[in-house]
Amino acid sequence: MKVALLGPCGTYTHQAAERCFDEYDPVFCRTLHDVMEHDARKVIPFENSLGGGVGEAVDVLRAERPRVTGEQFLEIEHCLVAAEPLASIETVVSHPQALDQCRAFIREHGWDTVEAASTAAAAAGLEEGQAAIASRLAAEVNGLRVLEEGVQDRRSVTRFLVLGGEPEAAEKTSLILEPGEDAPGLLHDLLGCFADRGINLSYIQSRPTKAGLGEYFFYLEADAGSSDPRFEEARNCLEEKTDVTVLGSYAAGER
Amino acid sequence: MKVALLGPCGTYTHQAAERCFDEYDPVFCRTLHDVMEHDARKVIPFENSLGGGVGEAVDVLRAERPRVTGEQFLEIEHCLVAAEPLASIETVVSHPQALDQCRAFIREHGWDTVEAASTAAAAAGLEEGQAAIASRLAAEVNGLRVLEEGVQDRRSVTRFLVLGGEPEAAEKTSLILEPGEDAPGLLHDLLGCFADRGINLSYIQSRPTKAGLGEYFFYLEADAGSSDPRFEEARNCLEEKTDVTVLGSYAAGER
Repeated sequence: MKVALLGPCGTYTHQAAERCFDEYDPVFCRTLHDVMEHDARKVIPFENSLGGGVGEAVDVLRAERPRVTGEQFLEIEHCLVAAEPLASIETVVSHPQALDQCRAFIREHGWDTVEAASTAAAAAGLEEGQAAIASRLAAEVNGLRVLEEGVQDRRSVTRFLVLGGEPEAAEKTSLILEPGEDAPGLLHDLLGCFADRGINLSYIQSRPTKAGLGEYFFYLEADAGSSDPRFEEARNCLEEKTDVTVLGSYAAGER
Repeated sequence: MKVALLGPCGTYTHQAAERCFDEYDPVFCRTLHDVMEHDARKVIPFENSLGGGVGEAVDVLRAERPRVTGEQFLEIEHCLVAAEPLASIETVVSHPQALDQCRAFIREHGWDTVEAASTAAAAAGLEEGQAAIASRLAAEVNGLRVLEEGVQDRRSVTRFLVLGGEPEAAEKTSLILEPGEDAPGLLHDLLGCFADRGINLSYIQSRPTKAGLGEYFFYLEADAGSSDPRFEEARNCLEEKTDVTVLGSYAAGER
């Protein structure tokens, strides 16, 4: 079974995919757009507890309307990885966000920093005197040593979405609402379709429609399956007011 | 008058500041955190019509609670700038987002790309055979020629917030709501405080509180000044349900 994901080998998305599937054939892609072009299951990063939502991921869901079939939580455990011992490290290479998340650790050692396209790319391209901040998996696949683990300043968790295949249960539903024109009380009115039926919303993200500033669409996750009668009622209520796309129902991930 | 903003000289934030103030003394900073540390007025990028909200900007508003006193819209007009003629360009340097926004133009010419920390830094550090994608202002301040303008694939507009000083009017109000614990219908309930009084919300952004995944706060912009009696009622209504921080009222920017 093929699974398209953000590469190269050893990214946190790769690590999340390892947890989702027992046996699979990873297809490493450079961008989220490349991931979506594959006729395979997919794993995409969706939100991080420090960085917030991945806007581009919401945009590809709206553009491609794939079937959302699962979610996976992954605690981000940044490691300092290198081919050399700690004493000879002078420079640390990683994705800017990872460097930022390990600021205190890097400052403590007085190292210079170099930005790379991803944590995994950093680990794959080390030069003399360099260490990377990357996942444990990135160290493994590149034959590097983990010099230190848990080097991030603060704990963070990333949530990934699984696209394609069959869901294991229908506890949550992802959907997109596109109201088009704005009006006072519009979002309140839409959310009322859920609130009136006691359905909790666990996530909401507004994104520009790209038509111009001031026009937004909403991505929501409701704590109910799409064939739950309460959800069906909520959907009918929404469809009277706006364009609705239900992307799929799935099991709530284990935190 | 000092104004702190994202540098170096020639960034789009610099260009927005040029529109906000007739005479001022720019203080160029490397990060939004550095901007916030200055005891000066500030201009920060807040949302783009293609890229969406700048999450980090919402986070610094929550952390620092500055007074929001204005907004400024700026159409992003990417230019190809260089010291050399078009025929000798082999590589294009820019911020990854700018390179992405000019993908068609770059592909058409078959150029290689190199990522830089900002569009302005790209223009300031050009080597032989290189051109930058940057603002017209970046070309001016670095003594470069504009080889071509409007090289972006799609039109986009960025909205900036002005912090500090005195607002010119009180047409809009920025505020932060921190509900703490989630409950079914919570956001619907909060938005009802505005909807029940006919106050439109022009912007809403949810962000993780950083306490863990699943706990969010909301940044809102209401189309009413904070001393408008309807807004005062809405605020009382909100304060019965959640923590409220009003960041300031200001004039709606010209689009």
